[in-house]
Amino acid sequence: MSLWLTGIGVSRGIAIARVQKLQAGDLEIPERALAAGEVDAEVMRFAAAHGIARQQLREVRAQIPAGTPSDIAAFIDTHILMLDDRSITDGTVQTIRNQRINAEAALRKTRDALIAVFEQMEDPYLRTRRDDVSHVCGRILRVLLKSERQLPQRSGQTEPFLVVADDITPADIILLSQQHVSAFVTEYGGPLSHTAILARSLGIPAVVGLRDARRLLRDGETVVLDGEAGHVLADPDALALDFYRAKQRAQAQYRANLIRLKGREAISRDGLHLRLLANIELPEDAKVAQENGAEGVGLYRTEFLYMNRKDLPSEEEQYEAYARIVQAVAGPITIRTLDLGADKQVDSGRSQGPTPNNPALGLRAIRLCLKEPDLFRVQIRALLRASSLGRAQIMLPMISSVQEFRQACAVIDAARLELIAEGKQLSGEVPVGAMIEVPAAALAAPWLARQARFFSIGTNDLIQYTLAIDRVDDEVNYLYDPLHPAVLQLISRTIEAGNAAGIEVAMCGEMAADPKYTRLLLGLGLREFSMHPEALLEIKQIIIESDVGALRKEVASLMQSQDLQEMRERINALGGH
Amino acid sequence: MSLWLTGIGVSRGIAIARVQKLQAGDLEIPERALAAGEVDAEVMRFAAAHGIARQQLREVRAQIPAGTPSDIAAFIDTHILMLDDRSITDGTVQTIRNQRINAEAALRKTRDALIAVFEQMEDPYLRTRRDDVSHVCGRILRVLLKSERQLPQRSGQTEPFLVVADDITPADIILLSQQHVSAFVTEYGGPLSHTAILARSLGIPAVVGLRDARRLLRDGETVVLDGEAGHVLADPDALALDFYRAKQRAQAQYRANLIRLKGREAISRDGLHLRLLANIELPEDAKVAQENGAEGVGLYRTEFLYMNRKDLPSEEEQYEAYARIVQAVAGPITIRTLDLGADKQVDSGRSQGPTPNNPALGLRAIRLCLKEPDLFRVQIRALLRASSLGRAQIMLPMISSVQEFRQACAVIDAARLELIAEGKQLSGEVPVGAMIEVPAAALAAPWLARQARFFSIGTNDLIQYTLAIDRVDDEVNYLYDPLHPAVLQLISRTIEAGNAAGIEVAMCGEMAADPKYTRLLLGLGLREFSMHPEALLEIKQIIIESDVGALRKEVASLMQSQDLQEMRERINALGGH
Repeated sequence: MSLWLTGIGVSRGIAIARVQKLQAGDLEIPERALAAGEVDAEVMRFAAAHGIARQQLREVRAQIPAGTPSDIAAFIDTHILMLDDRSITDGTVQTIRNQRINAEAALRKTRDALIAVFEQMEDPYLRTRRDDVSHVCGRILRVLLKSERQLPQRSGQTEPFLVVADDITPADIILLSQQHVSAFVTEYGGPLSHTAILARSLGIPAVVGLRDARRLLRDGETVVLDGEAGHVLADPDALALDFYRAKQRAQAQYRANLIRLKGREAISRDGLHLRLLANIELPEDAKVAQENGAEGVGLYRTEFLYMNRKDLPSEEEQYEAYARIVQAVAGPITIRTLDLGADKQVDSGRSQGPTPNNPALGLRAIRLCLKEPDLFRVQIRALLRASSLGRAQIMLPMISSVQEFRQACAVIDAARLELIAEGKQLSGEVPVGAMIEVPAAALAAPWLARQARFFSIGTNDLIQYTLAIDRVDDEVNYLYDPLHPAVLQLISRTIEAGNAAGIEVAMCGEMAADPKYTRLLLGLGLREFSMHPEALLEIKQIIIESDVGALRKEVASLMQSQDLQEMRERINALGGH
Repeated sequence: MSLWLTGIGVSRGIAIARVQKLQAGDLEIPERALAAGEVDAEVMRFAAAHGIARQQLREVRAQIPAGTPSDIAAFIDTHILMLDDRSITDGTVQTIRNQRINAEAALRKTRDALIAVFEQMEDPYLRTRRDDVSHVCGRILRVLLKSERQLPQRSGQTEPFLVVADDITPADIILLSQQHVSAFVTEYGGPLSHTAILARSLGIPAVVGLRDARRLLRDGETVVLDGEAGHVLADPDALALDFYRAKQRAQAQYRANLIRLKGREAISRDGLHLRLLANIELPEDAKVAQENGAEGVGLYRTEFLYMNRKDLPSEEEQYEAYARIVQAVAGPITIRTLDLGADKQVDSGRSQGPTPNNPALGLRAIRLCLKEPDLFRVQIRALLRASSLGRAQIMLPMISSVQEFRQACAVIDAARLELIAEGKQLSGEVPVGAMIEVPAAALAAPWLARQARFFSIGTNDLIQYTLAIDRVDDEVNYLYDPLHPAVLQLISRTIEAGNAAGIEVAMCGEMAADPKYTRLLLGLGLREFSMHPEALLEIKQIIIESDVGALRKEVASLMQSQDLQEMRERINALGGH
């Protein structure tokens, strides 16, 4: 009898393979009081386990084949760095000494306290660092408890296998990918979890958040997994197998076709040149982006410079990072200024006063920068200096009013004058633009467009604020809806205001990378799409096949529909390619 | 030398009076371990102090003169009820017994834990309950510590005095109002604090949040206080005194004129009838509302039924409450369904799982009701039954999409059929409307207007979500701006969509009660204003003086302005009456 399960599809692709369950990741952690004489030995035991864990991670790092996308190694690097973070090392040693308890129990306390901190964070990407803490501490705990998790060994077997687990660490994912795992199923996690991000980067189909998967699926049984729909079909009949095998072949063909698009320009069927840009994290990503046809970088985030540390990055340190990336990118590069909340420094152990009740509606991004002018000034000075090495432009996140934008521009102008007075070499004026992610900014776009040199629509936050939902809150994320007419109106107004004022309007949120929405966005008048480099070819494919003029008419007409159901059906019809 | 201080003006009016400082409210609370034999005696000591505190509050309650607005007595009733809440009584006794510490220290722990819970709440009104806990526990603590705060006694002196304190309890405000205190200055608190609300209700000018007020102002010195601007001027010169005395006389004259408006209808100079409605809490408020010319109730909140208790209110209990209010109100009454977050029940001590990171963007209001159909169904049944006793209509809070509205209507229809099947007497169909307070709802108003029988604009939340700020977060509330062009556009679109569909559009947020905005709102096409009964006459006065036709033209024109500065100046010119 077939069993049909549905989780959250986070990495596309069809897999047909046999189940290999990973043993439970839950650890029994005993707590034991130490005699006074035992304390030093226990600290040593912790230090030794910590060293072994680091060595394990370095071995995984060394096994990553050349040519793997850089963000994959970055996951392991992050863990290696975090392993040596003083909040983990010193914190645990202090707990062993002060509370006279065994290393496992002390480390668990450290871990739980850090996790509590990350769970307070409002940025969904930062909140996933909770998993980093859990995985890093889990690795040391396993060494201490002598309870290493055994990965399935293929040992010559050639049959495809997929792994079913409660949760999988980035290191395990990398090791399994080298054994050509066909797919992953996990019980925890969401679309932003590391499992999801890594699976997508590595092109491995995956379904997460499938509760009870280990209980429901049997070791060795054949299952079909559809990583887009989130379906897992256990013990499929011949008909289902045929259907999915055909789908698998079609997808392979589609991917092969995409590769052929690498050299082509993004020109629509009716001859319009669209601009593809990449969201990148590291200088190494610039190469993949360029190969896939990105004309520049539409979003370069700077938060990484501020994280996992106690002090603030100096101007020189920032300058060097920005200079490297500006030089690595051939086209223009949009650098976003610090987009963190007031709660960001908590990971460095500093006390920051009480956590706000609603950090997403609190002091963050440009608000924090304008409140802490020294923090902002240092970043701006570094950005202005680096911009003379290439074609950088500055993007201000979380702008909610014209006044706020002007205020930030005043700081930028002042920093510019300062640098000139100091005799620093600067290129011409650096364009300053606004990220449109607060409803107020989209509604005030006609006025903002007279101040900003460009717009970039951040759909993730724009949708959250417009619908008043926190996407990371499981209780309400069912309401998250990029196709809500309110969202479409705000996107449309922003694009129109930008076009009317003659400034460029890009989109750097997830909608820009989702092929379901490409035709809709073309129809709304969007001309610049910025996305993860891996998504470029697929979007380019759709653009090449599209008649933008016809889409403009169809979308203008459907946006007038009085019947929301009909509107949605017409949008879905656009998306189904 | 004059000293010019500025705090937050929360209750209008000019006071010229001598300073009387209230001694510090901070209590030194010692912690002491009890011997086993002392525990029972300590519990008895706590019980005795608790009884004295209750007696004190009852005495204050008894001193409230007849004819005082009912919400004032309600503050004291709330404190008396809270005093007997088991989380305070049983919680403290358990801590004395389990931790073997003195009553003061145990009560402090209870207080701090409860305060932490209320600080998590996202509704700014609920969050002020933090102050209730603090005041109620403070009263018992003072009895335990034998440290009663002495209120100034006028003892025959006739000179006007104003009180300067760190914070003032509702009970103290009532006692001081009977001594004809001229004004209050407090170091803590904001516009939503109890001091602010009570001062407004009692018509006593007040400035809150004036840090260091006790240090900067001297006992006995004369100060001028402007409760609208938030200014406190110490040791004023003759010129300043003359200026403020003239202002004081003009305001007295203005208030006297307002009283004469009681019987008049709200008809504009150009003959348009506007509809004034009241936001009320208790059946007793209906009388004041009617006297001041309210044609009905635009907002009746139902949260009070669910608070300070462990169980949920039964259908009968709710029916009785709704029946009382529906019968007390002559005109139509709009009853809002439960508008609490998932975190609401925490005050009853139940565990509710982890607090969401951003409760304002989480499971609350209609979302919670749709997730807990039993909770919702009971309320709807009670509402439908009560509505047959008068002219009630149902308002759904926090609607963000047409689908959500339809879903709620389906529950209401089902409840209606159920009641009919049970043979209950129901009047005709009860109109169901949407509160427009999420940006998505305002943007989707043209579609929603085809489903809803009326709209009511909740400006407080609408502004918060549109600008992505939490008004209760001190770090960002400087961004709160009812005149942001984005807010004005959403209000305008909502009104226009409602008018186009032929449904009524009211406004029940604070903007509707603020005379600064009345002309602007008339110009935007608003025809129904719902507010605290005390604000009705002033708004009526402005309406009577206004030419709505001219305002429509002026506002349509200023909304097109390309220059935001000019737009704001033109709006301010409208507001200055």
